[in-house]
Amino acid sequence: MNDPSPLIPGLDAACAGRVGRYLDTLTKPPGSLGRLESLAVTLAAITGEDFPRVTPPGVVVFAADHGVAEEGVSAFPQAVTAQMVANFVAGGAAINVFARRIDARLEVVDVGVASDLSGPGIVHDKVRPGTRNLARENAMAQHETREAIAVGRRAAERAAKAGCRCLIVGEMGIANTTASTAMLAALTDVPVAELVGPGTGVAGDALVKKQAVIEAALAARAADPGDPMDVLARLGGLEIAAMVGAYLGAAASRLPILVDGFIATVAALTACRLEPSLRPYLIFGHRSQEPGHDRALAALDAAPLLDFSLRLGEGSGAALAFPLLEAATAMLSEMATFADAGVDNREAR
Amino acid sequence: MNDPSPLIPGLDAACAGRVGRYLDTLTKPPGSLGRLESLAVTLAAITGEDFPRVTPPGVVVFAADHGVAEEGVSAFPQAVTAQMVANFVAGGAAINVFARRIDARLEVVDVGVASDLSGPGIVHDKVRPGTRNLARENAMAQHETREAIAVGRRAAERAAKAGCRCLIVGEMGIANTTASTAMLAALTDVPVAELVGPGTGVAGDALVKKQAVIEAALAARAADPGDPMDVLARLGGLEIAAMVGAYLGAAASRLPILVDGFIATVAALTACRLEPSLRPYLIFGHRSQEPGHDRALAALDAAPLLDFSLRLGEGSGAALAFPLLEAATAMLSEMATFADAGVDNREAR
Repeated sequence: MNDPSPLIPGLDAACAGRVGRYLDTLTKPPGSLGRLESLAVTLAAITGEDFPRVTPPGVVVFAADHGVAEEGVSAFPQAVTAQMVANFVAGGAAINVFARRIDARLEVVDVGVASDLSGPGIVHDKVRPGTRNLARENAMAQHETREAIAVGRRAAERAAKAGCRCLIVGEMGIANTTASTAMLAALTDVPVAELVGPGTGVAGDALVKKQAVIEAALAARAADPGDPMDVLARLGGLEIAAMVGAYLGAAASRLPILVDGFIATVAALTACRLEPSLRPYLIFGHRSQEPGHDRALAALDAAPLLDFSLRLGEGSGAALAFPLLEAATAMLSEMATFADAGVDNREAR
Repeated sequence: MNDPSPLIPGLDAACAGRVGRYLDTLTKPPGSLGRLESLAVTLAAITGEDFPRVTPPGVVVFAADHGVAEEGVSAFPQAVTAQMVANFVAGGAAINVFARRIDARLEVVDVGVASDLSGPGIVHDKVRPGTRNLARENAMAQHETREAIAVGRRAAERAAKAGCRCLIVGEMGIANTTASTAMLAALTDVPVAELVGPGTGVAGDALVKKQAVIEAALAARAADPGDPMDVLARLGGLEIAAMVGAYLGAAASRLPILVDGFIATVAALTACRLEPSLRPYLIFGHRSQEPGHDRALAALDAAPLLDFSLRLGEGSGAALAFPLLEAATAMLSEMATFADAGVDNREAR
């Protein structure tokens, strides 16, 4: 990736080492807080802070439409993308509920909804009104893909500037599991049959058709698996490209990134292929029910925090997992040491 | 169990059914919030409320000592039990940090610490100063076991009376994984070698010795596996008995119970053997690193919310999982319906 190529700083290994040693002075058997301790070390390495903070978090939801929706690959009509954006603005969607619980700064970005959205409560940064139908032609031109990535980077920069300490990136786009599954198959060479899933709820004949659409598109678009920008442009989506940009922008600002479900993970895989130095900034929120998610996680060597059979998107699963990051930072900053509390540790016996 | 035998109400199946149907009217694909949706239905069934609440939660930590500590089965000296109680009172332990994050009512109960604890910040309800050494004699007399159960029931009743909507029960007691492992082996007939683990951190020769102590105690105490009160008295602990009582008391008040790790789950298994109608009130917070926990969970057909390799106790893992219950209730009470939000659902297509 030549343009845009953010400079992603390396991790702070010295800080991670200090935090790891400090954890063993806290009033608990060494290592007994398991995954929470490794999260604390990861956050220290990312932020370079001995007492990292993740609050307030930022949640950015990118919305866009997909030309491939006209193939009947989703259980919901395309109009639902715009209707759900209105629901985000009104505060009634799952991500609104979960973002409120974690006191997040929530931003909804129209990077490519098919219909004209106006009014307050939305960041209007539309690259084009939906992708082209990837079953028939390339979803995006290269310049559109770059523009959508830039939309994502700007959103991450706004979050950082607003004081957010952690970024959650969500999406809304009817038919976007079709695009993501096609991208994942191209990037990993795993057969579509092992990746394709219900998305919002297709089953039976409709699922068979979804698989056939993806397989035909893969063959027809012939994206270069060694060129993530090519895969993204031919098979991806505007919101998926924006997610790629948001991850890169957040890492450039040393923000820990809490990755959501299937689509978010395919975007993360794409972003890591573009910039491998992004990978250590990614913490994976949950293992989704969408069958391809396991393969996407495996390609990133990722172990998610939750396994809740979610398949909603919007950033909802990452927002659900966020309190675990908060708890890791509170453990570091609030627990007493053996010395302070006058508790015998093993060595003192 | 004759005395004490609380009356545990049955679940509200009608309420659970209503909530299940209502979930499918919310602006998300049906079932797409996975485990969170089943949690919401469970909470409705327990509480009988269409919009259940779990806040504020109550956390009760029972502290007690174990005579078997003199066999050298723990990585920490017995004095640490009392020192950690002081740490709880000062607010510096892991459970303090996590209880604050969830705005919990935290109560520390001395049900059997060996040393004399006085002063504020502790509920003084000591049955006796530690158990007898279960390697040499029965840990408790039957009447002491009943008294400790009553201590737990009173604690649950205080939490309910104080307005708590969910109960987390934790423990502190040096050597209590030894007692719990012995109890679990007696209750399930699984060999000790498959259950025994590091507890606070014993390894190598010390772990071999811990296993031998437990195996010898099992043979010598010869508890009746069909009589949970006998198992609890001969092999258990005062804090474990109090946990049993707290679970029973909470269920009698229709409070959902968020179960912590290994010791908490052995107490839950014991309580369910005494009163099988308790089981549906139990939600399991996490899968601990202690090897016996998997077997204890399997005996209860339990699928925990988190898998974080924790092995601390104190109620810490349950407190970490609590925000997931809160999120389930917020999903129900705050999400918009398709009709309210003007979003097409599948049927409307």
